[in-house]
Amino acid sequence: MRAPKTFRLHIGIFGRRNAGKSSILNALTQQDVSIVSEIAGTTTDPVEKPMELLPLGPVLFIDTAGIDDEGVLGEKRIQKTLQIFDRTDLGVIVSNFNDWGEFEHQLIEEFKNREIPFIVVFNKSDIHGENIDIESQLDSVKIRYALTSATKSTGISGLRQLLLKTAPADFINRPTILADLVGPGEAAVLVVPIDKEAPKGRLILPQVQSIRDLLDNDSFCTVVKERELREALSLFNKPPKLVVTDSQAFLKVAADTPAQIPMTSFSILFARFQGDLNEMVKGAMSIDKLKTGDKVLIAEACSHHPIGEDIGTVKIPRWLTQYVGGKLQIDSIRGHDFPKNISDYKLIIHCGACMWNRREMLSRIIKAKQAGVPLTNYGLTIAYSLGIFERALQPFPAALNIYKEVYKD
Amino acid sequence: MRAPKTFRLHIGIFGRRNAGKSSILNALTQQDVSIVSEIAGTTTDPVEKPMELLPLGPVLFIDTAGIDDEGVLGEKRIQKTLQIFDRTDLGVIVSNFNDWGEFEHQLIEEFKNREIPFIVVFNKSDIHGENIDIESQLDSVKIRYALTSATKSTGISGLRQLLLKTAPADFINRPTILADLVGPGEAAVLVVPIDKEAPKGRLILPQVQSIRDLLDNDSFCTVVKERELREALSLFNKPPKLVVTDSQAFLKVAADTPAQIPMTSFSILFARFQGDLNEMVKGAMSIDKLKTGDKVLIAEACSHHPIGEDIGTVKIPRWLTQYVGGKLQIDSIRGHDFPKNISDYKLIIHCGACMWNRREMLSRIIKAKQAGVPLTNYGLTIAYSLGIFERALQPFPAALNIYKEVYKD
Repeated sequence: MRAPKTFRLHIGIFGRRNAGKSSILNALTQQDVSIVSEIAGTTTDPVEKPMELLPLGPVLFIDTAGIDDEGVLGEKRIQKTLQIFDRTDLGVIVSNFNDWGEFEHQLIEEFKNREIPFIVVFNKSDIHGENIDIESQLDSVKIRYALTSATKSTGISGLRQLLLKTAPADFINRPTILADLVGPGEAAVLVVPIDKEAPKGRLILPQVQSIRDLLDNDSFCTVVKERELREALSLFNKPPKLVVTDSQAFLKVAADTPAQIPMTSFSILFARFQGDLNEMVKGAMSIDKLKTGDKVLIAEACSHHPIGEDIGTVKIPRWLTQYVGGKLQIDSIRGHDFPKNISDYKLIIHCGACMWNRREMLSRIIKAKQAGVPLTNYGLTIAYSLGIFERALQPFPAALNIYKEVYKD
Repeated sequence: MRAPKTFRLHIGIFGRRNAGKSSILNALTQQDVSIVSEIAGTTTDPVEKPMELLPLGPVLFIDTAGIDDEGVLGEKRIQKTLQIFDRTDLGVIVSNFNDWGEFEHQLIEEFKNREIPFIVVFNKSDIHGENIDIESQLDSVKIRYALTSATKSTGISGLRQLLLKTAPADFINRPTILADLVGPGEAAVLVVPIDKEAPKGRLILPQVQSIRDLLDNDSFCTVVKERELREALSLFNKPPKLVVTDSQAFLKVAADTPAQIPMTSFSILFARFQGDLNEMVKGAMSIDKLKTGDKVLIAEACSHHPIGEDIGTVKIPRWLTQYVGGKLQIDSIRGHDFPKNISDYKLIIHCGACMWNRREMLSRIIKAKQAGVPLTNYGLTIAYSLGIFERALQPFPAALNIYKEVYKD
């Protein structure tokens, strides 16, 4: 399912004809497994390129390559350029720094006047001379910039981080946790086991957020323990649209939910809501490649996390060991510090990061991707090791396809 | 419905034959509108008196009046007295102070050894001499005591506060918010309106606590906005045992809930859970006695309360004014400070106090009662002024009877 154009983050790419706009775009594109289709335009019309840009998701690049510059924004081209500014959510100025000048300053001025967030990309490989003064010049005016070498494909990961950092929060944060899977006037069933770790008199945040997400979108839900699920389902004269369970009750809930009712877990919902479900599905599937002695990093977002304490430190290590059939080298981290060097790990398993904003989780996904380390989360790991991955992914066709592509026989 | 003996707080009253045990009991009894029935015993057996003691609720007084003392716990009576200690949750030593001595110290020693909370009551009117040294003597050993004059009925309110303060938390805190009205394996519907005051992505505490209370007791619930209630109810092939709404949606929910389904509000549940529903029902009914110019105190538990801000300061004052048909003098307070002098007020209207422990709310109920000022809460005020008091009280027969007694025609 392609995202409608209206939901895509519109990234306007500006710069002189020889600045390297196309090579930057190509470098981003070649790294992503995604379909890039060009929408034809006349030579002076900007080219629009819809794509799935990791980690931002669906974006629309507006490539102003067709617009000539000749140093300054002349009267004739002002109208056309203004139209692009009108629909730009995030601006990118590409420069080779050698002819950085009046034209670039006019672009910056325009972004500032319109309060459009923007970044500058210097294509290092095109820069002549060594001791250029980029850093001091742009740092002093607090302009965010990235240094890339499109031809050598270096700096692209830093550019992704900068795009992530600068993109408006509305585009980073997903609009819904699960209400899009349920629909107005329809019901979900949320299965909330109460074990001795559950804080007295409360529900944990992902559960509360899910209930609220449904109410905000004119849906409703039945909240029930796993033991009473069968009884609760028998009360419906029309099946609920979705059953969501805490991962810890996965097997019982899978058994008690009729096959025609879609079923998933809070963790899988949060992989999508707070991270990138497709990337994390790939991550979970890499469990199969783990071998005795491999290094695995388990990352908990909260530095003090009374709930689920033993999921990350006890249960998941135990399951993984059983699954792999040998001892793994498991490191645990907590909080906002992420190791600089992660390339030794064969897998990173993250908590749902329900207390973080999505930007932080996506930033880790880029870092893992750059280091070539698959990343997944607790719930996906549990679902995979319990053998109910396929059923739990059914509400998410794109993610399910990633799985089916590998196990298509 | 009488509380079973097992759920009553067992208060053992100890003291010498002439210490005033009976007059203390009578003073407490005469102030409470409650049935006191004596369970007959032999002269040397303790008399058990079940009663509704404001504000503790159902208690069982074990009156040791039949046990002779003669100064010390002689061998012959030790066995009988130990039996009483065995079932005492809260001990009361009554003394006239003149013969305070070895006997009382033995009682105190026994309470301490058994870790039974206890208080001492000095019946002032029986104390001979003015400059007695009670305070310094008992303060030094940190023993809680009350000074009463049972014959003049003074100090009884202070005694109640001391009993409240000393009673074990298990007896102060009610075991359930609403699960007792629903039952295991059965469903409630919780109606949660989402207005602009609702904090983003969250539910307010009483809603979360209610969901959790149901799960803890093997019940379950459907959570729905008032707009989708009708749709949600139509989805079930068996009516829920109870519909609970936020007071703000009372009229719509009353209209959309079939008459045979019991319906109440979170506020009414919390009047019972955090306060004393019967007292607060009386308080709400006193709205009818308000006249133009009367003073009303509106009390909010939280000192900073972003939600419901305008309920206490705007909506309730407006409703009351409309109901009374004239201007009232309305004072507002917030937080833990309660005015010393409240006897000028004709009514106190409290928030649900969901962030407090019940002890604090009960303490205010005693203070209001002592000052002769009726006390109610927001939700009961709203229900009363909207004319749906009777329906909202149906799940609570004792409270409903208080209302029907007055409006029996």
